[in-house]
Amino acid sequence: MKYLVKDISLAAQGNLKIQWAENEMPVLKAIAKEFKAKQPFKNTKIAACLHVTKETAVLAKVLAQGGASVFLCGSNPLSTQDDVAAALAKSGINIYAWRGISNKDYYRCLNLVLDGKPQITIDDGADLISLIHSKRTEALKSIWAGQEETTTGVIRLKAMAKDGALKYPVVAVNDTPTKHMFDNYYGTGQSTLDAVIRATNILLAGKKVVVAGYGYCGSGVAQKARGLGAHVIVTEVDPVKSLRAVMDGFYVAPMREAAKLGDIFITATGDRDVITKKHMAVMKDRAMLANTGHFNVEISIPDLESLSKSHRPVSSAVEEYNLNNGNKIYLLAEGRLVNLAAAEGHPSSVMDMSFADQALTAAWLAKNHSKLSINVHNVPDEIDRRVAKLKLAAMGVKIDILTPEQKKYLASWQEGT
Amino acid sequence: MKYLVKDISLAAQGNLKIQWAENEMPVLKAIAKEFKAKQPFKNTKIAACLHVTKETAVLAKVLAQGGASVFLCGSNPLSTQDDVAAALAKSGINIYAWRGISNKDYYRCLNLVLDGKPQITIDDGADLISLIHSKRTEALKSIWAGQEETTTGVIRLKAMAKDGALKYPVVAVNDTPTKHMFDNYYGTGQSTLDAVIRATNILLAGKKVVVAGYGYCGSGVAQKARGLGAHVIVTEVDPVKSLRAVMDGFYVAPMREAAKLGDIFITATGDRDVITKKHMAVMKDRAMLANTGHFNVEISIPDLESLSKSHRPVSSAVEEYNLNNGNKIYLLAEGRLVNLAAAEGHPSSVMDMSFADQALTAAWLAKNHSKLSINVHNVPDEIDRRVAKLKLAAMGVKIDILTPEQKKYLASWQEGT
Amino acid sequence: MKYLVKDISLAAQGNLKIQWAENEMPVLKAIAKEFKAKQPFKNTKIAACLHVTKETAVLAKVLAQGGASVFLCGSNPLSTQDDVAAALAKSGINIYAWRGISNKDYYRCLNLVLDGKPQITIDDGADLISLIHSKRTEALKSIWAGQEETTTGVIRLKAMAKDGALKYPVVAVNDTPTKHMFDNYYGTGQSTLDAVIRATNILLAGKKVVVAGYGYCGSGVAQKARGLGAHVIVTEVDPVKSLRAVMDGFYVAPMREAAKLGDIFITATGDRDVITKKHMAVMKDRAMLANTGHFNVEISIPDLESLSKSHRPVSSAVEEYNLNNGNKIYLLAEGRLVNLAAAEGHPSSVMDMSFADQALTAAWLAKNHSKLSINVHNVPDEIDRRVAKLKLAAMGVKIDILTPEQKKYLASWQEGT
Amino acid sequence: MKYLVKDISLAAQGNLKIQWAENEMPVLKAIAKEFKAKQPFKNTKIAACLHVTKETAVLAKVLAQGGASVFLCGSNPLSTQDDVAAALAKSGINIYAWRGISNKDYYRCLNLVLDGKPQITIDDGADLISLIHSKRTEALKSIWAGQEETTTGVIRLKAMAKDGALKYPVVAVNDTPTKHMFDNYYGTGQSTLDAVIRATNILLAGKKVVVAGYGYCGSGVAQKARGLGAHVIVTEVDPVKSLRAVMDGFYVAPMREAAKLGDIFITATGDRDVITKKHMAVMKDRAMLANTGHFNVEISIPDLESLSKSHRPVSSAVEEYNLNNGNKIYLLAEGRLVNLAAAEGHPSSVMDMSFADQALTAAWLAKNHSKLSINVHNVPDEIDRRVAKLKLAAMGVKIDILTPEQKKYLASWQEGT
Repeated sequence: MKYLVKDISLAAQGNLKIQWAENEMPVLKAIAKEFKAKQPFKNTKIAACLHVTKETAVLAKVLAQGGASVFLCGSNPLSTQDDVAAALAKSGINIYAWRGISNKDYYRCLNLVLDGKPQITIDDGADLISLIHSKRTEALKSIWAGQEETTTGVIRLKAMAKDGALKYPVVAVNDTPTKHMFDNYYGTGQSTLDAVIRATNILLAGKKVVVAGYGYCGSGVAQKARGLGAHVIVTEVDPVKSLRAVMDGFYVAPMREAAKLGDIFITATGDRDVITKKHMAVMKDRAMLANTGHFNVEISIPDLESLSKSHRPVSSAVEEYNLNNGNKIYLLAEGRLVNLAAAEGHPSSVMDMSFADQALTAAWLAKNHSKLSINVHNVPDEIDRRVAKLKLAAMGVKIDILTPEQKKYLASWQEGT
Repeated sequence: MKYLVKDISLAAQGNLKIQWAENEMPVLKAIAKEFKAKQPFKNTKIAACLHVTKETAVLAKVLAQGGASVFLCGSNPLSTQDDVAAALAKSGINIYAWRGISNKDYYRCLNLVLDGKPQITIDDGADLISLIHSKRTEALKSIWAGQEETTTGVIRLKAMAKDGALKYPVVAVNDTPTKHMFDNYYGTGQSTLDAVIRATNILLAGKKVVVAGYGYCGSGVAQKARGLGAHVIVTEVDPVKSLRAVMDGFYVAPMREAAKLGDIFITATGDRDVITKKHMAVMKDRAMLANTGHFNVEISIPDLESLSKSHRPVSSAVEEYNLNNGNKIYLLAEGRLVNLAAAEGHPSSVMDMSFADQALTAAWLAKNHSKLSINVHNVPDEIDRRVAKLKLAAMGVKIDILTPEQKKYLASWQEGT
Repeated sequence: MKYLVKDISLAAQGNLKIQWAENEMPVLKAIAKEFKAKQPFKNTKIAACLHVTKETAVLAKVLAQGGASVFLCGSNPLSTQDDVAAALAKSGINIYAWRGISNKDYYRCLNLVLDGKPQITIDDGADLISLIHSKRTEALKSIWAGQEETTTGVIRLKAMAKDGALKYPVVAVNDTPTKHMFDNYYGTGQSTLDAVIRATNILLAGKKVVVAGYGYCGSGVAQKARGLGAHVIVTEVDPVKSLRAVMDGFYVAPMREAAKLGDIFITATGDRDVITKKHMAVMKDRAMLANTGHFNVEISIPDLESLSKSHRPVSSAVEEYNLNNGNKIYLLAEGRLVNLAAAEGHPSSVMDMSFADQALTAAWLAKNHSKLSINVHNVPDEIDRRVAKLKLAAMGVKIDILTPEQKKYLASWQEGT
Repeated sequence: MKYLVKDISLAAQGNLKIQWAENEMPVLKAIAKEFKAKQPFKNTKIAACLHVTKETAVLAKVLAQGGASVFLCGSNPLSTQDDVAAALAKSGINIYAWRGISNKDYYRCLNLVLDGKPQITIDDGADLISLIHSKRTEALKSIWAGQEETTTGVIRLKAMAKDGALKYPVVAVNDTPTKHMFDNYYGTGQSTLDAVIRATNILLAGKKVVVAGYGYCGSGVAQKARGLGAHVIVTEVDPVKSLRAVMDGFYVAPMREAAKLGDIFITATGDRDVITKKHMAVMKDRAMLANTGHFNVEISIPDLESLSKSHRPVSSAVEEYNLNNGNKIYLLAEGRLVNLAAAEGHPSSVMDMSFADQALTAAWLAKNHSKLSINVHNVPDEIDRRVAKLKLAAMGVKIDILTPEQKKYLASWQEGT
């Protein structure tokens, strides 16, 4: 089966979107040119489990231009853009994804991707790699190495490696600076608030926004929410991150206190049960809950249901819960990552960097996979620097260059006061 | 010789300052209590080459309360607070430092400190350790380990380690999060601008401020300058840092272009010759130059002199250079780190964390030095977390705690979409 | 004819939206309660030419609850929300509006509204009042007074008054603090950027955003764009506003220079020909143009067409122009006010204040119109203060109250140094 | 008597300061050139009661260059810079002022200034004009008109006018946009925090700063405090200003609640008893109190004394109060305007505009005083625009100019949708 998509007739519209994204992704464009010439993926099959957006489409096409057979499925039930999926199907990518997919079909699509017998896997949340290590261990035979896009996935992979369960080397693309310092911080910052506004049309100025988690994602959301005039309250479990939030001028409090204050709650922790029954019970009437972490476990939906006498959709991305205590709580995007489910995910220009890291890492793995130990590896430094340089060039930004004397000074230790 | 200070009669005034600092340093206060009880430095001599400020005085006294004999000299000719030095001398610290010290006397004082035969060295810029490795190698006999406070020093030490020149283990206190993420970022950010304003009484709103370097120090200065209304231009040599500056909304340009635009220039790179003749020649009339990096080599003062027909002081911290081209350039604090030379250095509350890291690291070294390889080491994680927790407690900030289920979730890799 | 809408079957969906807005508009809710009891508009007909959004629907219903017969048409061809219009039609409002209306039908609808023989007119841009003064002068007979919502309309009305052409008193609702300091600044700030992001999914961080005009609207856009990480360039014609922009840390330049620098241009001036041929000719490839001023004359579309060999839509709100010079320029929302055409207009919570001003002004006019001279009047201070107090109460914000001694001090002039 | 100053030998040092200020005041420099040529103050005596700073010195000299005999006294006991006063005395200005003046001497100096029989009075806080209207009514004979620099003074003058007590026309220079939008907002914002930092060397990042009053001064302080990383709490009595503070992202609360939260309190209200016994009693240990309003009545010092068992100075600008409840409270600069008493007042570049308004207003009054009614008048618009244009030119900022078509469009009311 070459593809499973919602409606192949949406391909033309999908192509317009992909073109738009391509224009915003000059780094990938430069890499595509090189890949076409050098064919790093000749005879290579790549299985990718990613959010099927216009930006992912650009990545898939760049890999294909480099000679790869690409097998693609979605990494979240609500994040697939059906027109983009149709366009990819038409362009020859093996794609199995649609928006609103059931849990059963979700795993069916992952299995279809593995049927392609890939050498390289690319994950966003480690679902594909988990499946390989549990029910599809025969797929291990063909696999050289894997790549992981997101914090949550890297946490899972490091847990696997620690348990000795990991069976092939994986590169934590998420952890390279040109990825997580940009995509997680600037991308999540803007796109999460964009999604909240699209879903609710709320004015952020003057609102109390509770941000759970002050990692790269959470601090990005907190900064941009303040940039739009919100009064931001941060909750954290890590003392160093908590202190940074305080010093950045935010009000830091435990969730049990923040729950009483917030108008809007946004979780970005990578952990479960960040907002539970005990918090919901003390929230203000008409509190709004959104999650921008990878899985829909940060806000406990079972708890929300248990407190409610009824619920109903009030718009495509907002569910109204009528609590037994007489209050309403609004849940956005079913508690799934709101920027993909209620908006368009990260802007293309930031995915340009993350996916340039993915593309160059894949080419590097195609060449170097045999030298790698079975563990979680970093992206090589030269890839990171190259992506940054290409991006600066595309933006027309010039920077200084160290003189030989300056380099020597940095390497010396005899000069002093 | 117990001490060499400018004027011992300033001790009372110095004590008032030290008390003020102590009140702002609750983490060190908590550590002092523990040290008094446990005496971690019994029979231990500690040599410290640090900016002799009221905050350093608090550290020195805490070490002494832990049983140490402390030998202290300054780490910069312009940063000693003479009243504080007097108070320390009176309190029994072996101190050799005064403001405006000559280069020759500077090294005489370093040598006096080494005459104490220390087991632990604490440096800010690696001058003491350099001296030990060059002209005072006999001091190596008694030394267990060293500690380094600043980025510049760590760069020098890593260069030494790389060259195989390092002779004893050193802990890079600068590199621990509770130090460089706070002191370098928040501390330098505020204190540098504070110093520029004290020296010039200039309004930052509407001014073009060029910040050279976008590391922790430079980005802190850039953010706070914007927070005061300046239009900030960033220069950098590193592509990833450059991109972050762009994404943070700053105008990034090479110094040759920035030189024409700036009203005020602040260097924070850790490298030499950041602002040279070719930049000064194209600057606007009345441009102001300040350095907040460790050494006075970032702005080339020889170049400035070679372009000038005369110069004169116009206030205690500002030298007016009359250029041959008819323009004036104002050099602040002789190009030495402006926050210490033209203001009071970092606020006590941020040094509380840096020096808590120093104090706890010293106690840890006293116990564990024999297990360490001869290399540059990180501060143990538990020290970093402890400092953050103590600080939060002192500020009255409460944070969340992971439940057992949340910890388990973070350690697991089987749960997914 | 009771109504002319696109599709009456959309009423249920429209009602959901209106309910959502009502919940965000507590000040109007409080006023509705009073109006129901006091019936200030008994036997009164009100003609309103406003953007037909969910917020306007709430206003229309509040006026109706106060006893008024309401006649409503749209104030812009692209701003009507068809589901909301359907819901209003069903609820008994006389409404004539649909999205994408032709110019001819637009004026037909204005005429239908006047056929209702209103005593009070409410305008957003002064189109209704202009029509009355030109082709529908017989309508003047029944009219007591008018109200104007926006800066552009007030400029037109003051020009009319200056020319002696104005025939009945009008209240400049736009000019009252609780309107223009909030709706124009916070509302336009967020909703304009929201619209740009919805239309293009662009990342603002690192982009050069040119904002034309630094009045309440423009400065709001500039501040929020910076809050999202953009590098903002401001163009202005007024020297005092220009200076404020400089002091607020923005780069201020004439449009001829800004045109070369910008990635995104947003006009908010209230004037015509802000961006013309000479600017477009020097723009970068892929520049984006949006207008958030009242009329679609700020960006010269005829000029854009004259420079282009072709154009095509690339999404619902973006038209791609292929210039003869090989570049592309993207025009958003046909140059009409982008926040209403490409997003949902101002958030309800800010329209709550603007429309509370409208509702209370209408009630005040119903009582006091005969005492007013034929001129442009301010909203009475007590209305402004009442709206602010109701809003604070709805947000749960408490403030201080002057003691008698403090009031006396402010009124005295004898006490001094 | 030509002068009464602390120490005439400080004149050389004062001159250096005045030169520094002159270089930062290009608008006044341009006006000086014109005044020298046109001599607008030939045979005119001007009495000024202003903070005797280097910027005031530049104004005084510009007036003198325009032909005026200038008589100058201080407008606050703690704000005189003695070296500047000495330099002015040497240059021929009739000056009576020194830092730390007693209340009795303060009024003696005001009387000396009036002995000069001025035609124009310039006030900062209305002390001179109050004296004239109470004990020196004979001075009214020679007086044409007055000018007032600050909000507090304008409030007093309007109260006088309302009571029918005002005896000559006064121009509220404070109220013109190029004055209060810049000096009060940007100037007070920076200089107040500068003073707090100089006095205490506190880190603002992470501190809770309570700002009382959200007018131009208070909102400037709040914005800059946030810009330095503080968590800002605003107290207000005006509902519209309160709402703006909320929408700007600040936490707004009554002082009785804010008193429990704050680390630092800054009053900027123009009213008395903003912080009293009931607030001090619930403050945290080591709370710091500063005032940036005109008079030292905003913080009740009698209340602070009544709660304390003792107090002592801990530095030149900080008094430590030991409360009966065991806490300490630190009062900065005796509760007088902290930016002048603990730092150098507003930066020269912003006073350039305020004092250009004063200089041009004085010249305009010299010509037009006979046409003015006895009331509080605005600065003529053309003066305001001229100051803004001169400032932009001095900063090298270019702006757009309206075309004839654009002007016509703004004046027309027939064009519409």
